[in-house]
Amino acid sequence: MAASRPDPWSFLPPHQLQAMARAWLDEDAPTFDPTSGIIGRAPRLAQLLCSSPGVLAGSPLAEAVFGVTGCEVTWRVAEGSPLPPQRTVVAEVKGPGASLLLAERVALNLLGRCSGVATVAAKAVSVAQGVQWGGVIAGTRKTTPGFRLAEKYALEVGGADPHRHVLGGGGLLLLKDNHLAAARAPLEQVVEVARRAGGFTRRLGVECSTQGEAMAAAGAGADIVLLDNFTPQELHATAAVVKAAHPRVTLEASGGINLETLPQFLGPHIDVISMGCLTHSAPALDFSLRVLSPGEGDGDEGTR
Amino acid sequence: MAASRPDPWSFLPPHQLQAMARAWLDEDAPTFDPTSGIIGRAPRLAQLLCSSPGVLAGSPLAEAVFGVTGCEVTWRVAEGSPLPPQRTVVAEVKGPGASLLLAERVALNLLGRCSGVATVAAKAVSVAQGVQWGGVIAGTRKTTPGFRLAEKYALEVGGADPHRHVLGGGGLLLLKDNHLAAARAPLEQVVEVARRAGGFTRRLGVECSTQGEAMAAAGAGADIVLLDNFTPQELHATAAVVKAAHPRVTLEASGGINLETLPQFLGPHIDVISMGCLTHSAPALDFSLRVLSPGEGDGDEGTR
Amino acid sequence: MAASRPDPWSFLPPHQLQAMARAWLDEDAPTFDPTSGIIGRAPRLAQLLCSSPGVLAGSPLAEAVFGVTGCEVTWRVAEGSPLPPQRTVVAEVKGPGASLLLAERVALNLLGRCSGVATVAAKAVSVAQGVQWGGVIAGTRKTTPGFRLAEKYALEVGGADPHRHVLGGGGLLLLKDNHLAAARAPLEQVVEVARRAGGFTRRLGVECSTQGEAMAAAGAGADIVLLDNFTPQELHATAAVVKAAHPRVTLEASGGINLETLPQFLGPHIDVISMGCLTHSAPALDFSLRVLSPGEGDGDEGTR
Amino acid sequence: MAASRPDPWSFLPPHQLQAMARAWLDEDAPTFDPTSGIIGRAPRLAQLLCSSPGVLAGSPLAEAVFGVTGCEVTWRVAEGSPLPPQRTVVAEVKGPGASLLLAERVALNLLGRCSGVATVAAKAVSVAQGVQWGGVIAGTRKTTPGFRLAEKYALEVGGADPHRHVLGGGGLLLLKDNHLAAARAPLEQVVEVARRAGGFTRRLGVECSTQGEAMAAAGAGADIVLLDNFTPQELHATAAVVKAAHPRVTLEASGGINLETLPQFLGPHIDVISMGCLTHSAPALDFSLRVLSPGEGDGDEGTR
Amino acid sequence: MAASRPDPWSFLPPHQLQAMARAWLDEDAPTFDPTSGIIGRAPRLAQLLCSSPGVLAGSPLAEAVFGVTGCEVTWRVAEGSPLPPQRTVVAEVKGPGASLLLAERVALNLLGRCSGVATVAAKAVSVAQGVQWGGVIAGTRKTTPGFRLAEKYALEVGGADPHRHVLGGGGLLLLKDNHLAAARAPLEQVVEVARRAGGFTRRLGVECSTQGEAMAAAGAGADIVLLDNFTPQELHATAAVVKAAHPRVTLEASGGINLETLPQFLGPHIDVISMGCLTHSAPALDFSLRVLSPGEGDGDEGTR
Amino acid sequence: MAASRPDPWSFLPPHQLQAMARAWLDEDAPTFDPTSGIIGRAPRLAQLLCSSPGVLAGSPLAEAVFGVTGCEVTWRVAEGSPLPPQRTVVAEVKGPGASLLLAERVALNLLGRCSGVATVAAKAVSVAQGVQWGGVIAGTRKTTPGFRLAEKYALEVGGADPHRHVLGGGGLLLLKDNHLAAARAPLEQVVEVARRAGGFTRRLGVECSTQGEAMAAAGAGADIVLLDNFTPQELHATAAVVKAAHPRVTLEASGGINLETLPQFLGPHIDVISMGCLTHSAPALDFSLRVLSPGEGDGDEGTR
Repeated sequence: MAASRPDPWSFLPPHQLQAMARAWLDEDAPTFDPTSGIIGRAPRLAQLLCSSPGVLAGSPLAEAVFGVTGCEVTWRVAEGSPLPPQRTVVAEVKGPGASLLLAERVALNLLGRCSGVATVAAKAVSVAQGVQWGGVIAGTRKTTPGFRLAEKYALEVGGADPHRHVLGGGGLLLLKDNHLAAARAPLEQVVEVARRAGGFTRRLGVECSTQGEAMAAAGAGADIVLLDNFTPQELHATAAVVKAAHPRVTLEASGGINLETLPQFLGPHIDVISMGCLTHSAPALDFSLRVLSPGEGDGDEGTR
Repeated sequence: MAASRPDPWSFLPPHQLQAMARAWLDEDAPTFDPTSGIIGRAPRLAQLLCSSPGVLAGSPLAEAVFGVTGCEVTWRVAEGSPLPPQRTVVAEVKGPGASLLLAERVALNLLGRCSGVATVAAKAVSVAQGVQWGGVIAGTRKTTPGFRLAEKYALEVGGADPHRHVLGGGGLLLLKDNHLAAARAPLEQVVEVARRAGGFTRRLGVECSTQGEAMAAAGAGADIVLLDNFTPQELHATAAVVKAAHPRVTLEASGGINLETLPQFLGPHIDVISMGCLTHSAPALDFSLRVLSPGEGDGDEGTR
Repeated sequence: MAASRPDPWSFLPPHQLQAMARAWLDEDAPTFDPTSGIIGRAPRLAQLLCSSPGVLAGSPLAEAVFGVTGCEVTWRVAEGSPLPPQRTVVAEVKGPGASLLLAERVALNLLGRCSGVATVAAKAVSVAQGVQWGGVIAGTRKTTPGFRLAEKYALEVGGADPHRHVLGGGGLLLLKDNHLAAARAPLEQVVEVARRAGGFTRRLGVECSTQGEAMAAAGAGADIVLLDNFTPQELHATAAVVKAAHPRVTLEASGGINLETLPQFLGPHIDVISMGCLTHSAPALDFSLRVLSPGEGDGDEGTR
Repeated sequence: MAASRPDPWSFLPPHQLQAMARAWLDEDAPTFDPTSGIIGRAPRLAQLLCSSPGVLAGSPLAEAVFGVTGCEVTWRVAEGSPLPPQRTVVAEVKGPGASLLLAERVALNLLGRCSGVATVAAKAVSVAQGVQWGGVIAGTRKTTPGFRLAEKYALEVGGADPHRHVLGGGGLLLLKDNHLAAARAPLEQVVEVARRAGGFTRRLGVECSTQGEAMAAAGAGADIVLLDNFTPQELHATAAVVKAAHPRVTLEASGGINLETLPQFLGPHIDVISMGCLTHSAPALDFSLRVLSPGEGDGDEGTR
Repeated sequence: MAASRPDPWSFLPPHQLQAMARAWLDEDAPTFDPTSGIIGRAPRLAQLLCSSPGVLAGSPLAEAVFGVTGCEVTWRVAEGSPLPPQRTVVAEVKGPGASLLLAERVALNLLGRCSGVATVAAKAVSVAQGVQWGGVIAGTRKTTPGFRLAEKYALEVGGADPHRHVLGGGGLLLLKDNHLAAARAPLEQVVEVARRAGGFTRRLGVECSTQGEAMAAAGAGADIVLLDNFTPQELHATAAVVKAAHPRVTLEASGGINLETLPQFLGPHIDVISMGCLTHSAPALDFSLRVLSPGEGDGDEGTR
Repeated sequence: MAASRPDPWSFLPPHQLQAMARAWLDEDAPTFDPTSGIIGRAPRLAQLLCSSPGVLAGSPLAEAVFGVTGCEVTWRVAEGSPLPPQRTVVAEVKGPGASLLLAERVALNLLGRCSGVATVAAKAVSVAQGVQWGGVIAGTRKTTPGFRLAEKYALEVGGADPHRHVLGGGGLLLLKDNHLAAARAPLEQVVEVARRAGGFTRRLGVECSTQGEAMAAAGAGADIVLLDNFTPQELHATAAVVKAAHPRVTLEASGGINLETLPQFLGPHIDVISMGCLTHSAPALDFSLRVLSPGEGDGDEGTR
């Protein structure tokens, strides 16, 4: 075991990295590129730079993109490490000139977005740790369509729990208000059918909007009770009541919680706080690529 | 011609809407979903709601997603219209209960992100119009990998120019600093080869970081000179000089310009301002779906 | 809620049914088919027949295949119903003559295999119910590559739990002997890291081959202890000891259990029995299609 | 020419092996896998074992799957060789720990199913050879949807003829009872049109269920007459009559023939016996992977 | 049976028509199209015109493309019919204005190419029929990569035999000079192994370049002997000798035969002449689309 | 910068070459190939030959196809070079025997077609240069569906401008007669809306069929006026008038122009001549592969 903490890079299966890298390149270069013909395929050296503070995430994705085009990356900052506010060399990239330019924008977009998500996630985790709260900061399924795997991965790098990956096939079977409305049956009955549908491999969660519902859900056997859109005051009161009656239930809070309001939701009976803003509104970090001139690149290279 | 302004909805070819809708659903529901089995396929009615102010964008994408699952959408707010801060019914959706839940999260994610981009774009356009600036606010290729078409579309809805869609096959052949560094040849020579490579169908742009480069690029025949990372002061001085010498050249400014700093970059000689933040850091709007209870839905429905 | 038991047909998202149907047809008819040109596109009526006893499964898949080719199916036997040993009309299919022949073999292969899996699963469930055993009969990931969704679905139809669908993204995080061997760390430490890696949404299982390991795994916090390749005698002894110490742990037995040996493994402390043979060695049922002659089809049709 | 017998491994084009391997891995690992993060990417050694008697098949498929994840396989038993009843080391696999676990289940499923098909095929061939029957044992299109190429390949490894691969584009144009029913024309006329539709490159077969039909089909110019669902007695009588009149026609028997009943269908006038059970109901062989502990693997490795 | 001649349109499976139509549209419109936004989605009527003489082919392909975009086609000239030299209305197309323009170029390209191939094929067939030659004019695998199915289909429409569709999986196993060179074994031995490899479902062909090889191949049991690159004189002499000795063998001639030289190769002992030029060098026919003005379209329509 | 002329080979992104090569191989070898099993995987050497005069094009595509199957190509004639009429060794290819045969037909088809297009394009360019005409010879979107990228690339190799690649997303926004008919608005208004729809990155072209339309289009601000289907006389007269009034407008002529009629359309006011026949009717060049016998290949090889 490489370390006592799981290594997110290893989470990403090789066949997926390759497939995603090809699809991303294909979006930006669906047909041929005359600018490549201007540069040619002679080798060039470039620096990958970051100019925003935060947490580096997305290295395996960017490396896969460069790899498909025939470039090699040597990382100077490790995935998951903090990035200072001043411009920093994150990596060197070497490969055919045309390939560096071909992969550039895709790789920068990947690093910018993944690092953006990891940075906000790390901030939320840090807020929670700052008040010695022992629970879990988690993401949601509020991800960019088509880009979920990258954003879930970035949450892992930032130290947050990615929460469930998919609607129905994942670990957690979550009954939301709309399930109850659409099923048109009492909560207890829906929970019972859901137990059977979900099987023994899944945990069962129920989204509740009142203390009454929360007690009913816990009583019906939910593993997780999701307290949605409670005010902090209501939340802590309800959580205390539910936990007293059902000490083994996991209590999750959600509903528009952001970095500013997060501290109000951190309470002794809350186990998980899930925040859509970690993925749907994280600002990107600013990465750039700089192809080196003969003097710079070649000279530097020898001494490394 | 339906209107004197192009209709963005028509931009999206039917075969692409279908293909994207299927791929997005497949990401969220790659295997089968037990919660669907709890609800069944009896018809239900739901409201699509928005709780954030902004501009509605993404309707054709959301409609395609609902359509693939067998649901029909009736829009109450037109694509591109303003959304008030208070909770608003944006549409009604009708279809099999299981399908409403299947499409829910994907459709909400699409609307949230597209409306987020359109809202920021519309704000930037409004800032420019507020000072009677006659130029064009444009996006960049700093989009989410795999989601570019949706984000470029949202820029159109917001009133901004989507700028070029792809690296090399699109309308504009843009020589950036890295092209010049990688080509290792004088700017004039690179521009000449680029002209030949780009053909008569493309406009040719050159990214410049000094006034000297800008004059050289315009002199070498660039259609567009991209003044990158200039301070406002430098920008306006350089633009005046270049325009005096080359009145037909299009001058584009870019480099970290955001909604706050935008007014400083609006000048009489600047034709285009391209802003990466329109797509890479636009916060999502808050959409939700609410399945109606028998009383609500059925009653309401009759009176519509 | 259509019924108090989940409806497996609804589990299958429409976009997946369509995509799979197209891929399956493409495998059997990758290029054009001269026999279709002999028959032409005039409408014909056909009967879908079954000649083996068992449980009908695969109707939504077969219907999707016929649907892609422009045929309509009217089912005479409901999905999940028992099929008698004598030849039975399962459905009528109507559509262009060439399309009936195009979809025939694919649809029959789907019904034969899915019903085969559902039949064996139903037999195993029946054995368990026959001795009033209250646990769960489950499948495994020992499915045909590329055909897992159909086989997992058939397990549901047959009344078995499909168990986890995928290696790492699903509900259950299962540490097998090879994980422990590859991690080269003590079980307690691996379980702790796995907890963190798996997050709060997943249940955590540990595969054990001795009573010692089982006690260690339960003590380290496993939700599920998988007792693999135990003799029935060892199994029941170990289960009694572990349950006495850890009453909340789920005990799962597996390892070459088949319909004949199943009764020996049904014990009071065993919660789940997972059987690879339900999917990897289930014999197919015998389905056929019979295009009706003018007299038969047209006459019959009127009276239905 | 490597040998006087064709080498099935070479049948499989490299681009297909790669594409199938990626698709199979994607089914089992569609999103990221936290267990990989526990193990990390340090190299490990594992043994691939088989515990059932039979014929080894599927090696190129398993090797392709391991290859995509960065593992190398050294085979100890050659494709197509007999496997003894006792546990046997079939191969060693070396690669990143996380990759071994990622490819494990997919590779085992491939080997189990392909070897299952090859084993039953070899048994049928052996039965035929045991009575000095000189004809051909063949498969059918009754294969698992999406997995046909692997099952057809396994038939080749087992010594059987894979029969036609696809409905209409393959070597043989086969008119079945449903074609005749759907065409609504006399057999002679249908055969004549089929000849023209099929062209000079294809053999033409006609499925018959009576001696009269068989004589008519042979008389109309069929290359192959398929005697479907005849009793052994009827079969041999009909075959004698048809062969006497049309000595060049190929006679094929089919219809529910299995390993037990096969001997009754082996007759001097029968050229081919096609058996659906070779693919639709072959039980899988039992393969497993065992990651070696430091002592085992490293020590062993040196002496190999 | 619709007719005594197979109907090529029915050869094309619906799932393939749809998939190809989507892929072709995607090539021409990979991202969104601003010109569609100018036109809007109001319905328009258009005429599909042809201005070159020849044979109409490609209607099902063009109709599928229009269908994907929401347009309906009414054919005025039937697939396979002759087209006069003067401009002719081939069909009317009705649908959203933006969709007509979206599908236009793709549909015209399909009709132009398919009709081009069908026209040359029909000319070759006509030359052969003009001298009462009773053999078969056939195509080859010299088709445009990615477009084979359409070109093989056009051969059928033109009255030629499409010959085998794929390298190894199709009806005919053809041993070419390179197979013999690569196998490095005597022809008789290669033919024997090929028989076993090809199975009973396939015909076996051998490419020969001398009379000696042709006699050897026929003697070794080839079903088809392909006389490649013979002069007409050598061809007819060799064919007479081989047919005298092996009257059942099919003799095929090929090698640079074109419409001008074809008559010299038509001889009494030649059964098949295969011509690469039918697909690799057929000039396209000239099709165009004309969107009607209000007066034209609406008025005309009523009187048809 | 490798050279003062762009290098077409570099235009083709590596991820596209790989993806296309796999798709093309899959079309020709969708299932397994028994002839490969006859040859085996022992290494063989082959020559790639051309027997027609023209311009070599398609090398990167053919090399990618061979590469996917595990073969290496050494080119003896450089991409873009002239090919003499006599048979010429274009390249040597080395790899597993079965792979050489697998890639053969696909690679030959690619070279034959691409070289055919490049040859006709080069002839047209040569005609224009022969009379000192300084304009641009360009292709059109009249390409083979699914094969556009290869044909556009071949135009580049032949020295012609590939013109726009796609309908709406490319460099040029072209309003054709059908746009104007479908828009049902005056030309000036349509051009104005098109300008807004097209954005600042695209050039705007208008197809015109009379001098009046041409003057209106140029007056409304078109960058390019496409004079379609003019006689040479009308063309030159109109061009003179339009250029006198609008000297900056680019004038393009098109409409059935071929190699024979081209000289009549070359005039002093015409900037671009676009010719559909360069791609839709270019005859293929004749390429072949010859696997060498032991003596030939091995001997030669040593001396290289």
